[in-house]
Amino acid sequence: MQQLVEDLLNGSKRAAARLISLVENDDLQKIELLKEIFPHTGRAYVVGVTGAPGSGKSSLVDCLLQQMRADDLKIGVIGVDPTSPFSGGAILGDRIRMQEHALDQDVFIRSMGTRGSLGGLARATREAIQVLDAFGKDIILIETVGVGQSEVDIVRTADSTMVVLTPAGGDSVQTIKAGIMEIADIFVINKADLPGSEKTITEINMMLDMKKSDKWRPPVLPTISVRSEGIAEVWGALKEHRSYMEKSGYLMEIRRQRVSRELTEQVEYLVKSRIWERVKERFKLDSLVEKIVLRQKDPYSTANELLEQIKFYGENGKEGD
Amino acid sequence: MQQLVEDLLNGSKRAAARLISLVENDDLQKIELLKEIFPHTGRAYVVGVTGAPGSGKSSLVDCLLQQMRADDLKIGVIGVDPTSPFSGGAILGDRIRMQEHALDQDVFIRSMGTRGSLGGLARATREAIQVLDAFGKDIILIETVGVGQSEVDIVRTADSTMVVLTPAGGDSVQTIKAGIMEIADIFVINKADLPGSEKTITEINMMLDMKKSDKWRPPVLPTISVRSEGIAEVWGALKEHRSYMEKSGYLMEIRRQRVSRELTEQVEYLVKSRIWERVKERFKLDSLVEKIVLRQKDPYSTANELLEQIKFYGENGKEGD
Repeated sequence: MQQLVEDLLNGSKRAAARLISLVENDDLQKIELLKEIFPHTGRAYVVGVTGAPGSGKSSLVDCLLQQMRADDLKIGVIGVDPTSPFSGGAILGDRIRMQEHALDQDVFIRSMGTRGSLGGLARATREAIQVLDAFGKDIILIETVGVGQSEVDIVRTADSTMVVLTPAGGDSVQTIKAGIMEIADIFVINKADLPGSEKTITEINMMLDMKKSDKWRPPVLPTISVRSEGIAEVWGALKEHRSYMEKSGYLMEIRRQRVSRELTEQVEYLVKSRIWERVKERFKLDSLVEKIVLRQKDPYSTANELLEQIKFYGENGKEGD
Repeated sequence: MQQLVEDLLNGSKRAAARLISLVENDDLQKIELLKEIFPHTGRAYVVGVTGAPGSGKSSLVDCLLQQMRADDLKIGVIGVDPTSPFSGGAILGDRIRMQEHALDQDVFIRSMGTRGSLGGLARATREAIQVLDAFGKDIILIETVGVGQSEVDIVRTADSTMVVLTPAGGDSVQTIKAGIMEIADIFVINKADLPGSEKTITEINMMLDMKKSDKWRPPVLPTISVRSEGIAEVWGALKEHRSYMEKSGYLMEIRRQRVSRELTEQVEYLVKSRIWERVKERFKLDSLVEKIVLRQKDPYSTANELLEQIKFYGENGKEGD
């Protein structure tokens, strides 16, 4: 383990891949490992790219990757596909791109699907980011299929978030709901050669102008990723947003929030495991469950009763307030 | 509130709709409300229907609904669309079907999307099921777009789960990953008039036969929902699976597990809120966060330190073991 972390810090792709597998498989040594790499993290800039299936996210990410490499930045790409039990999309995209960049020592690409286990994906992604951050990547691109909860998870992990849409044809873009408008730092209208492109851009701009705010105003940029058109502008906007985040102090602020949330989650995780270690036996959970199943008790009052019994030390002990 | 619950129990559609809105909006009175209706729940049979976008789930659910109504059953339908920030699909389907069944007193249809708030959807769905159960529905159909985590949530809530697929064209069905194979009680191959239908059915059957098990063996049934073909067979298989679940004792077993999980979640929810009420001030979380942001501490050791300080009463007090 120690050796693996050393190899990672010395730039071994193999070590990075193995360490990501360890966190992904929720290996027992995971926490030790994350502890060790933690001091070496915090340098990478994390960019989230989200959009509906078929919006051309992957080819856009490929184009961006080339732009970033031209600036001599070291790049990590994590493709997250929560839909993979159905589509298997992430794995396919992975393979195709792997071939193209396999010889580039400064690009690391990894796909994370649900792998049959389903769940824990957001956490595994966060931890993989830590590994690539310690590995020395300058930019980490997180590409994800946009499906409700996963966008939220991106926002919580990314420093800048790009939402990829396609022209709505003749339709209006009313279907873009509040949630999406709020997470985007940059809108990309990909496949901008399709009909309706101008209208879509105008409508999104109008929606954005309706929200009065003195904060960052997301640009709406057309691209045709299969022909590499508009990519320089997107990369320019990303750099601009990063600079805005840094100068305004928001970057520090969101990273502080992120640490606070992760610390909170970790404490809750530890508390949970402790509660249930002790509670299950002491309070005979099974017989309570039986009573609830038979509708002799309801789960809400029962939870309150249980809580009454799981007293915290501070409430009665010497540390009490 | 009391009046609303009474109206619900007396069969008021309006009351059902309002109560679901209350749980969906996480209204402050929610727990009181859920407590009150709880004794009237546990009678409905919950059927989950999941599948990729475009598999024709909605029209299949419509056909099934008609079959069930012919048997004079009272039906609730909850359409859950975690992707709705992008597609707005659930809301559309809702409107179309609403018109058709609006005059049928014994059908209640409701869509639940992320509504901008994103998250909490699974919990809201479970609570909406409780409302419709108390409302006297015999069968509650939960229709959801299959996207990773949401299938798991369906399985956790449904008594029978149907997975809807479409013929894979010339391709093989290798993309159906382990997770999907395990949650399906019934496979429906919809749009069975498309090429590749036979092959898809054969391949899924082969995959199912490879798993040796003395439990329920999911049937693989072709349907063409736009022409209402194959629906009677699906309804037959559902009834058969229900009867299997009841006779084998598995239904009682999964409902026991569900109650156990919900009770657990409720206790954890209460514990969490208590911990953070007290911890945030006492342990000066903000300064810890700052140290972590500056990489002077790591979140994992810090979480452990915090836990050491949140002692449980039982560990030092008179209830100790």
